[in-house]
Amino acid sequence: MTAGGVFISFEGIDGSGKSTQARLLADWLEGQGRDVILTREPGGSPGAEEIRKLVLEGEPDRWSAETELLLFAAARRDHLERTIRPALAAGQVVICDRFADSTRMYQGLRSGDMRAKVDALHDLMIGHEPDLTLLIDMDPELGLGRALSRGTGEERFESFGSGLQARMRAGFLALAKEFPDRIAVIDGAQPVEDVAEAVQAVVAGRLG
Amino acid sequence: MTAGGVFISFEGIDGSGKSTQARLLADWLEGQGRDVILTREPGGSPGAEEIRKLVLEGEPDRWSAETELLLFAAARRDHLERTIRPALAAGQVVICDRFADSTRMYQGLRSGDMRAKVDALHDLMIGHEPDLTLLIDMDPELGLGRALSRGTGEERFESFGSGLQARMRAGFLALAKEFPDRIAVIDGAQPVEDVAEAVQAVVAGRLG
Repeated sequence: MTAGGVFISFEGIDGSGKSTQARLLADWLEGQGRDVILTREPGGSPGAEEIRKLVLEGEPDRWSAETELLLFAAARRDHLERTIRPALAAGQVVICDRFADSTRMYQGLRSGDMRAKVDALHDLMIGHEPDLTLLIDMDPELGLGRALSRGTGEERFESFGSGLQARMRAGFLALAKEFPDRIAVIDGAQPVEDVAEAVQAVVAGRLG
Repeated sequence: MTAGGVFISFEGIDGSGKSTQARLLADWLEGQGRDVILTREPGGSPGAEEIRKLVLEGEPDRWSAETELLLFAAARRDHLERTIRPALAAGQVVICDRFADSTRMYQGLRSGDMRAKVDALHDLMIGHEPDLTLLIDMDPELGLGRALSRGTGEERFESFGSGLQARMRAGFLALAKEFPDRIAVIDGAQPVEDVAEAVQAVVAGRLG
């Protein structure tokens, strides 16, 4: 665990319910007297939110995979410096909806050889991982239906379709095997309350 | 030289006259029947111009050195893909007001150990250098006075003051020694017409 605080991220495909689960976990921890900050990527700090707008709005081919990767890295660096690290230093629990694993999947999988570039860029410019990552695993058809029904206007990624989402799901599960000490897989197809309880059990086990 | 086209960059401290010289060189080459595109960094493509706004406007400490470095890299990648490489492929002469050398100086010198990070990021995400770089060398006191008198509203960098500009000048001259085959040093303290003639002589020598 990072000295002073705990850094927890939620990951999963679009519509997996991770944002809901991040909020429910924040509520549950606050109910236990923990000092919690709930944040998200891309975004999570004023500067990173501006970069988020630049990346997520507009045509799907507005940015190349490499440019998008750099913009996400800039947003993450700002978020880390201005929001996450100060909160951890103050002893807070930081709950983040998406972090570097999303980039490993969404940018890393988009072009065949991008994963190595994604990892090299992360090591060079970010160099920080969550203490615990909760992967909310879900069937992509179910997830995509949920994501489209939200109609957030940030559908650049959702527009890539369920074929990509299926590759993402497989990619996230492979990532969980790559980092077994950090990433816990939660079955997101259960009722929301059951998913929340499964999340709480894992977090309680880690926080002690 | 890059197959099909020629990529020429201008570098120097703020107020050195490099933008004027870039324009004069473009006019001169066009007068000789060359197909020329005049561009600039940060910016030079629609996406990169949006990133430019994000970086250059606002308070000097709005972005950390690392975040700024990533934003400049994103803008450069977009500029390279959408403007520079297509122009070179079409056989044009690309004249660019600032390129990666400016990042090596402005971001590389800002913090003590950033140059290695700047170079690693360039190798990873950009990997392209101009065929020829014209360094317009100038006394920083003279250059700063010129830059401030422009009043462009993009004075984040100028506001770092003449102490930084003096380090930049020394840094640019050291860079010219590091890359003697690519970078030609031009005395920018001469009258504008004389600087232009010196630039033309170097370019004529390289273009044959």
